[in-house]
Formats: sequence, structure tokens, C-alpha cells
Amino acid sequence: MSTLQPIHNIAEICAQHGITDVVLSPGSRSAPLTIAFARHPELRVRVVPDERAAAFVGLGLAQAQGRPVALVCTSGTAGLNYAPAVAEAYFQRVPLVVFTADRPPEWIDQLDGQTIRQTNLYGRHAKAAFELPVDFAHRDAEWHATRLVNEAINLAQEFPQGPVQVNVPLREPFYPAAGEEIKYEAVKINREVAGAPQLPAGELEVLRTQLRQTKRVLIVAGQHPADEPLLLALRRLGAAYQIPVVGDLIANVHLPVGSDYDVRSAPLGRQDVFMAVPEQGLKEALRPELLITFGQSLISKALKNYLRDYAPQQHWHVQQAGAVADTFRSLTRIIRMEPAAFFEALLADQPKTTEAELATAMGGSKPPRLTWQGPGSARDEAAAPKDAFSTPWQRANGWATQFLAEFMQQSQQPFNEFTAIYRALQQLPDRAALHLANSMAVRYANILGVPAERAIEVFANRGTSGIDGCNSTAVGAALANPERPVVLLTGDVAFFYDRNAFWHNYPTPNLKIILINNHAGGIFRLIDGPRQQPELEEFFETRQQLTAENTARDFGLGYYTARTFAELDKALPVFFAPTKKGNAAVLEITTDSATNAAFFEQYRAAVRRAFSA
Amino acid sequence: MSTLQPIHNIAEICAQHGITDVVLSPGSRSAPLTIAFARHPELRVRVVPDERAAAFVGLGLAQAQGRPVALVCTSGTAGLNYAPAVAEAYFQRVPLVVFTADRPPEWIDQLDGQTIRQTNLYGRHAKAAFELPVDFAHRDAEWHATRLVNEAINLAQEFPQGPVQVNVPLREPFYPAAGEEIKYEAVKINREVAGAPQLPAGELEVLRTQLRQTKRVLIVAGQHPADEPLLLALRRLGAAYQIPVVGDLIANVHLPVGSDYDVRSAPLGRQDVFMAVPEQGLKEALRPELLITFGQSLISKALKNYLRDYAPQQHWHVQQAGAVADTFRSLTRIIRMEPAAFFEALLADQPKTTEAELATAMGGSKPPRLTWQGPGSARDEAAAPKDAFSTPWQRANGWATQFLAEFMQQSQQPFNEFTAIYRALQQLPDRAALHLANSMAVRYANILGVPAERAIEVFANRGTSGIDGCNSTAVGAALANPERPVVLLTGDVAFFYDRNAFWHNYPTPNLKIILINNHAGGIFRLIDGPRQQPELEEFFETRQQLTAENTARDFGLGYYTARTFAELDKALPVFFAPTKKGNAAVLEITTDSATNAAFFEQYRAAVRRAFSA
Repeated sequence: MSTLQPIHNIAEICAQHGITDVVLSPGSRSAPLTIAFARHPELRVRVVPDERAAAFVGLGLAQAQGRPVALVCTSGTAGLNYAPAVAEAYFQRVPLVVFTADRPPEWIDQLDGQTIRQTNLYGRHAKAAFELPVDFAHRDAEWHATRLVNEAINLAQEFPQGPVQVNVPLREPFYPAAGEEIKYEAVKINREVAGAPQLPAGELEVLRTQLRQTKRVLIVAGQHPADEPLLLALRRLGAAYQIPVVGDLIANVHLPVGSDYDVRSAPLGRQDVFMAVPEQGLKEALRPELLITFGQSLISKALKNYLRDYAPQQHWHVQQAGAVADTFRSLTRIIRMEPAAFFEALLADQPKTTEAELATAMGGSKPPRLTWQGPGSARDEAAAPKDAFSTPWQRANGWATQFLAEFMQQSQQPFNEFTAIYRALQQLPDRAALHLANSMAVRYANILGVPAERAIEVFANRGTSGIDGCNSTAVGAALANPERPVVLLTGDVAFFYDRNAFWHNYPTPNLKIILINNHAGGIFRLIDGPRQQPELEEFFETRQQLTAENTARDFGLGYYTARTFAELDKALPVFFAPTKKGNAAVLEITTDSATNAAFFEQYRAAVRRAFSA
Repeated sequence: MSTLQPIHNIAEICAQHGITDVVLSPGSRSAPLTIAFARHPELRVRVVPDERAAAFVGLGLAQAQGRPVALVCTSGTAGLNYAPAVAEAYFQRVPLVVFTADRPPEWIDQLDGQTIRQTNLYGRHAKAAFELPVDFAHRDAEWHATRLVNEAINLAQEFPQGPVQVNVPLREPFYPAAGEEIKYEAVKINREVAGAPQLPAGELEVLRTQLRQTKRVLIVAGQHPADEPLLLALRRLGAAYQIPVVGDLIANVHLPVGSDYDVRSAPLGRQDVFMAVPEQGLKEALRPELLITFGQSLISKALKNYLRDYAPQQHWHVQQAGAVADTFRSLTRIIRMEPAAFFEALLADQPKTTEAELATAMGGSKPPRLTWQGPGSARDEAAAPKDAFSTPWQRANGWATQFLAEFMQQSQQPFNEFTAIYRALQQLPDRAALHLANSMAVRYANILGVPAERAIEVFANRGTSGIDGCNSTAVGAALANPERPVVLLTGDVAFFYDRNAFWHNYPTPNLKIILINNHAGGIFRLIDGPRQQPELEEFFETRQQLTAENTARDFGLGYYTARTFAELDKALPVFFAPTKKGNAAVLEITTDSATNAAFFEQYRAAVRRAFSA
């Protein structure tokens, strides 16, 4: 047996566990892994030289495919450059199997090159760290290695999914002889079959009773991948109990499901607008007694703050396993079931609802009134019962939707990023994957929403909310499925930060990047603290003069620009038109940071004005 | 007292400890630190948006200044992007004080944005991690914070120097009121005065006796900053005992010291040439009985392998404190003194040597013979005693120097990176700081050497030998002293990997970058394993088509190109000419990877041929 056989087998174990994609960064110490993965007939191996970008590309692939991706890097700081993506994967629950090549243990700390302390490299930001044996002389060692790789892949996929490290110490020689074929042995596979937790029947009945007896129940969805059974269960539950369901874009509850889907009965998404108002009456009207949540983080700071200030008496969080955050300081119950299964179980005593009934029960057929007049100040136009708790939520949301549409269409406005993003989002291709970069892109988009009928699935690195890998994650998504349009909405700081996302040899014609370039970290001009400081421009915004033109030239990206609404409206259809070959395209929308801030302030004032009318 | 006063005091404590430079990356959570540092009248604060680059810029500043630099970042993955530079600083012994802003502990793991687990973020790659209090209501808390910051700065500077993390949990509000001045209080400073360890007199006498009784003593210098007293002590010791001193470029033992410095009596540096030969007789002649080392890593794999194969009976390593590597597997004694002090102490029983005597004792006045004829096969032309152990070392080194000069001047050669680098190194500006990027740049330069009389101080990130921050480190060096020319020799993969080094608003006209672009990780074509694999181009070299032209345009870098020796010879004087304004300049030397590999193989064959003559 070749001394490298157990290393070559790693690729086979990955393939048999259903891993299809590998992202590797070149190195010498990692050569046996490189060769094992590169030659495996069932694995697609892509090379991305900058490990920081490589790991985010892997994250994007894993997000899009819903299965683990393997990363392979050499020894030394290569693995440390993975750390931002590993942390994001940990908090966003994305399965990654990270293979870090290492020197054998006797050579650690002996001043050899590219040698750091790789054991448990990611600390509390990986689900576990596995250390492969270095010596395969004893027959148990190969079993040990096989077992650990199986355990690592299983653990990455176990809920809550996440990253695992497999550290692979390697002694020379690293290479098969020239022309020597390597073979993949029959390997032992230990396959884990996930079980779905069920509550005892008695417990469920207690919860159902509470639900029936509580008038003011609110469901808030945190970040969650698109999930049709979940969405159908939510619609049924909402209709049966008049429960408003609220979710940010990244909760993906805006996705249309069901044969008779009606946008007006969809979960609510304009909380960033109607929660930002000062109206106490509205806030009282919206206050839940019982809050039920699932999923992960919220974008909407307005909603988060609201639920902290107007805390419910009870807060149930539905999550099948793992640590649970007390996001609103009011958590009273953790329900260990999958959200869809739990919501279905709550409905077990309800008659099945038809799609038409759902639509009628949940929303009115007429648009709500534009000027807000308090929760009970006008005849309610929604079809839901006037005293239903969902009614003020739906009216507020409907108002916000219409307010935004009218506000955005006002003719007297300077070219600004808020409106530009609104217009771009209106033209998103059907069934696109929309990637929202931190920091302002995701906030703007969450205010503005996406056209519901377009079935846009939304992704954002909200596990850690870093700007460090937004391009790369979108590149990974584009590589995962060349048939699907992937749109990245990003700002200049995030875009230039992660330029090395494009430094590889794989075409991504399906990737369209809307780059909002205000030549600064414009977010700091939009928030109250820093914009009043003398340090604003130098130490917060960090003004910079880059455009994407040279980056586009470097990587052969299609390059479009817009500096006026006319240019934008002209560019969008061309930019979004499907292309089959070549590389990604960038639409660089250049705006002025001060104008943006002023216009956004106008928007905020208009919201406040509408509510005091 | 403002609740932020203890945070503002951090800047004052840093300043009073002699920190002068701060590198920060913008953020919201870190705003109180940003303002405290930015407004401090004695601190130079620079903003670098990409934290990976920012930390290496800080490393470059600290290397150049020989004192700690403070880094400031916001919460979340920002701090993880520092990790590669922190690990490099740890293993290279560069003092960094890393301030990571954090959420208060109650909000960790609660799904708030930019929140990870920052306590002890760098694990075993920082000297220590300090956690500041979050609440200053009790009067002990401010003392606690002050004490911890003092301890952190002291620890960073204690030998072996390195990075420390100070995690700073912060609650809102982050900002002083608009226009409010912040003040710096009188702070308690706890200043640590380093002591120099001394061996007991009896111990020293034992070592002196051993030294006198051992004929074959070799000193090998690892990576070390330039240190004049050390160099003088080495020259005296070498002369007194006929001890050859060998050091790679990064050991900085090639620097001329003393009023009567003679290059021929300098420590030896061409080991990568003469150690690479197959000649057994030479290797036997060079074998030490006693090896004395100081400093850190070696570049020369040939020397490292030689000393592992031809192990000395004894190996003393001189290092005042900290863990000691057993680089050659032969370590027998750790001597806890500073190297210069130890070598001086060994000389305490010797008469003082004059500079002229030093020159005569250590090297001949005539150049050594070019064709190697074995250690004792010809009449020795060196002035040192014929049977001195230093004689074969000096002859071999002299031969290698002359061999290189003649080999490089051969007229029939294609344009290739090895020769191009040789020519560029010959024209380095006087007293430049030469930064050598990993991976091939540092290896080529170590083979070729630099003109000794030019007094070139050499830096390289050989703590971890990563390519990830080579540009940024050089940028930091250039910022540290605008009067000193800084030359970075780098390859294309390292250069493009760390492009964000230039993404800031500070001019570095004194930085000159020699970019060897072979459009691939050319190192993989130069080593035996990967170049024989079918995966070479796709999975090891990672061919890429970037040139620096667009990067130069993006950042306003001067841009020069060379694709022939004529262009190179013409460009070098213009490129190296001092400039007082503007940004760095890049000289992009474009070569072909296969041609480079073929020429380098010619060089290796020529070395072998010369030795079998």
C-alpha cells in the first residue's frame, strides 16, 4: 500500500458522502490532498488562490447546494485566512469540511516554514476539530483516519450545520512517481441518518391550547433558507389563528408558494418602514402577547428594538437542536422541533384550508389606505376580522408598501443610491438568487423588498455580518448552478475588500453585480453618531476613489455604469439580460455620499410625516 | 466622568508607553477607540479598510520602528482578518497590541450583527488575551482596565516580543456629543524595565574552555534584526577562534559594521550555492563539532538539510528567554543570554582585536579560486591558517560568490527571473530596507545575495512564511520612515493576493516594488514533485493572466515594465531613483515560467559541474 493511500481515500470518503464540490488553494504540503481530490472522477475541484476568498466561495457553493463543500489548503497561515468564512459558516449554519494540511507534530514550533499551531485552529468557531494520524504503520491507524473523516462529514451536516476542521499532518514524499496512477480503495462509510424530534402529544396539546387562548400571537422568522413546506404551514397557521407572520428578506418567507398564491396574503416584510415610525398607538396595537420565532438573525433593527421595548409575555423559539439566542430578552420556551413540523403539528386540530380561503383569510383584496390613521381610526378595509391581531400588522405593512412605491416615484429627486437600488430590485430576473452584501446593501434592500412574484431567494452573510466575503460567496453561488441568475447587491467597501473573489479561472456568466459606489463607507454618514464627528470622512467613511473599471479589466468582467436615473434605466435590462458565456458583469452605480444621506433623511422624514398626518 | 473616559484613556496609556503609530480599520462598535486614538495629539493614526492588510501594515511599522504598534478594529470577523498577521508577529517576534472592539458579554451569541466569540481570538498565536471590563460603575473597574492595558503593552515588548489581544467590550452610546471635546486623563503607567540575563561566571568559564578545546566550531545566525554590537562581537569571536559565521540574508549578518570593514572578512552568505553541491569531501570538511546558533528561522534549505545530515556533536542555542526550536535535531544546550552579550562574554579572556587584524584574520585579500578542488587539494590562498576550520567555509563561500558573478554574466541566456533578480539586487539603493516576499522571491534572493557595501537591511515574513501580507508589510515599512528607500521583491501570486495593501490614502513614494510576474505560482515548476504531475498547471501553478497595470492605475502607483534584459537595465536606474511625492512604484518583470524553470535547472547543473571538475 502506498503510504499516501489513507490520504487518497479521503477524497473517496467525501464523494461517497455526497460531497460534489471542492475548493482548493495551491500549496506544497497539501499536495497529496490536492492530487487525491483533483484526480477523483466524481469531484469538481476548483482552485482559488486567495484562501480568504476560497473559503467564502466554498460557503457560497454549500449555501446554494445545501450540502457540505470541502476546502483544502496548505499549512501555515493559509488556514487562518479561512477563519472569517469559517466563522460565518458557523453562525450561519453552513456545512464546510475544512482540510488543512500540516507538518507532522514533531516539526511544529521548530522554525520550519509555513508552520503554525493548527490543531483546533478555529477554536469556538468550528463545530469540532479532528486531527488525523500521521503514521499509518499500525493497521488501526487507517481505520482511525477513515473514522475521523466520516465523523467530520457527519458532524458538519448534523443540525445545526456548520464547519469542521480536519487537520492532516503529512510527511514527505508528497507525490506519486511521475505517471503513477493513484487508486481509490473501497472505504468504510458511516452514514448518519437524521431523525426529526417530536414533542410528546401532551406537550403539543398544551401549546395548542395556549395558542387558542392567546389573542395576540406574532410569528417572526429569522434568517432561513427557502423551505416550501414551512411556508405552506405558516400560511395555514396564520390563516387559522389570524397570526401575522413577519420576516426580513433573508427569512425567505416572501417566496410565493402554493398554486393559488396571493401576494396580499403573504407574510409581511416592510417592518423597516412601519416600525420606524414614532406612533405609540400603532406600536401598542402591534404588540404581541406571544411571540413565536424560528430561524436565525434579523436584519431589521427597528423590529428588533420594537420587540425588545414592547416585549411579549411569552416568547417561544422553535429549533430542533443547538444553542438558542434570546434575541429579544423575553425567551420563555424552547421547542425542539423543526419549524415546519411544529407549525403543522399546531394545526393538527384544524380543518385543511384551501388556497382561496387562505388568501381571503389573510389579506384584503383592496390596497390599504396610504395615510396611516391609527389602528382603529378608520373603517378597516382588510378582509380579516376587524379585531383580529393580524389586522393592524397587515394594514401597516400594506401602507408601507404603497408609501414606498409612491415615495420612490416622486419626480423631484437627485440621483441617489436608495432610489437606484429600488429601481434595480424591481427588475431582478425571475427566480434569481439575490445576495445582499453587508453593510448598507442588505439594509436598503430589507427596507425596499423585492417583487414577491419574482420568487427571489435571498442570501446574506448574516452569521457574522462581515463585508469580507460577499463577492466570493456570490461567486460560489454562481458556480453552484450556472443556469440560475445570481445577483449581488453590494457597496464599494465590500466590493473592493473582496476583489480576489474573481481571481480564478472559472466563468460565471450568470453572476450580475450591482455595485453602489459612493466612494466611502457611506453607512457612517447615515447613522447619527459618526456623522456628527470631525473624524467622519477620514476615520469612519474612509473616502476612496476606486471605481470597478480596472477590476473589471483585470478579470474580464462585463462593465456597465450609471450616474443618472436615465442611464440606470437604460442599463438595467441589458445588464440583467442572460448571458451564457464569459464572466460576471458589474453595474457600477456611482452616487454621492452626502446626497445619499440627505435623500435618505428625506425618506425618513416622509415616513414620520405620513404618520403624524 | 464620561462613561467612555476609561476607553479614551487607552490612547493615553499607549502614547505614554511610547507607542507612536496606530493602524485602524473603520467600524461602528470600535468608534470610541477610533475617536480616542484619532484625537490623541501624539499618535499617528492611519486607516486601512481591509483588516488583513491593516494588520500587516502594522507589522511592517513595528518591524521598522522596533516598538509596538496598536491595531484597532471593530467587532466580528474584522479581528479574524488580523489572524494571519498576528500569527506572523507571534513567530517573528514583532510586538503588536491588538484592540478588538466587542459587544458586551451579555450580547454574545444572541444573533446580533458582527458578533463572534472574541475572547482569546488568536488562541496560541498571541502571547496573551486581555478582556477589559464592560462596566465602570465600581471604581476598581477603571484601575482594572488601566492595569490590563499596561500589562498588555509590557507583555508585547517583553522578549520574545509578540502580539497581544486586548478585547474591549463596548455598550452604546459610542460617541461624544457633537462638538464635545474629549480629554485624556492622567493615567497610571506601569513601566517594565527589561533586565539582561547573565550566566554564572563558572558556567561561562566552562563554555569558554569548551570553545577553546573544540577545533570545529560553526556559528549559524537565524533571522535577526540588524544589530551592530552583535555583528561586532561576531567578527571578534570569529577572528579570535577562526569560527566561520554563516547567515541567510534575513539574519542581517551581511551588514557592514566597524570602521575598517572588509567584505572578505564578513560572515558567509552563499550557503544556498555551495551547500547544494554533491561533493562529499567538501561536506566532511565543513562539518562542525560544535554548532552555535542564535536568532530564528533559516531560509537555506540546503544549509538546514546539511546540518541535519551532518549533525554536530553539540549544538548550543543562545536566546535570552522563550521556547527554543531544535531546528537541526541536535540541540544540546540552551544559553539564556542575549547573543551579543554572550559572544562578548566568550571573548572576555581575549585581547581586543583591531579592525585591520579582524580583516586579515578572517579572510584573504585575493579572491578565491573559481573551480573548487576539494578542501585541501590546492595551496590555500586565504590568510587564515591553512588548517583552520574557517578556511574551507571561506573558500567555499568565496568560490560561490565568484561562480554566481560569472554565471550571471554569461551572454547566452534567455530573459529569466533568476538573472533579472540578480541584476535588480545589484542596483539596490544604499541603506534600503529590502523586503523579500515568500515564496520564490526570498529563495532567489538568498541564493544571490545583496551587495554588502550597500548596507541593505533585509526583512521577510519568515515567522509563518505566508504570502498573505508581503505587500502590506512593505507598505508599513515605507510609512515608518519616508526618508528610507524600501524595496519589495515579490512574485505575482504574493503581489495580487495582497493588493489591498495599497488601498489607503497615505503616500509611500519611498516604496519600490520589483514584481516578478511569471503568471503562475512558479515555485511549483521548480520543485521536483509537482512539476512531474499532470495537475501542475491547473492545481499547483494556478496560471493567471493578471498584470500589475490595472492595480497601478487603481492606486496611482508608478508603473514600469521589463520583458528583456535591455528594458530591465534601462528601467532599473529610473525606477530606483528617489522620489519625494506620490505613491509607490512597481517594476513588473514579465518572464515565462517554463523558461525560468529551464534556466534555473541550467544554474543547478552548472553548480554541480563546477564541483565535479
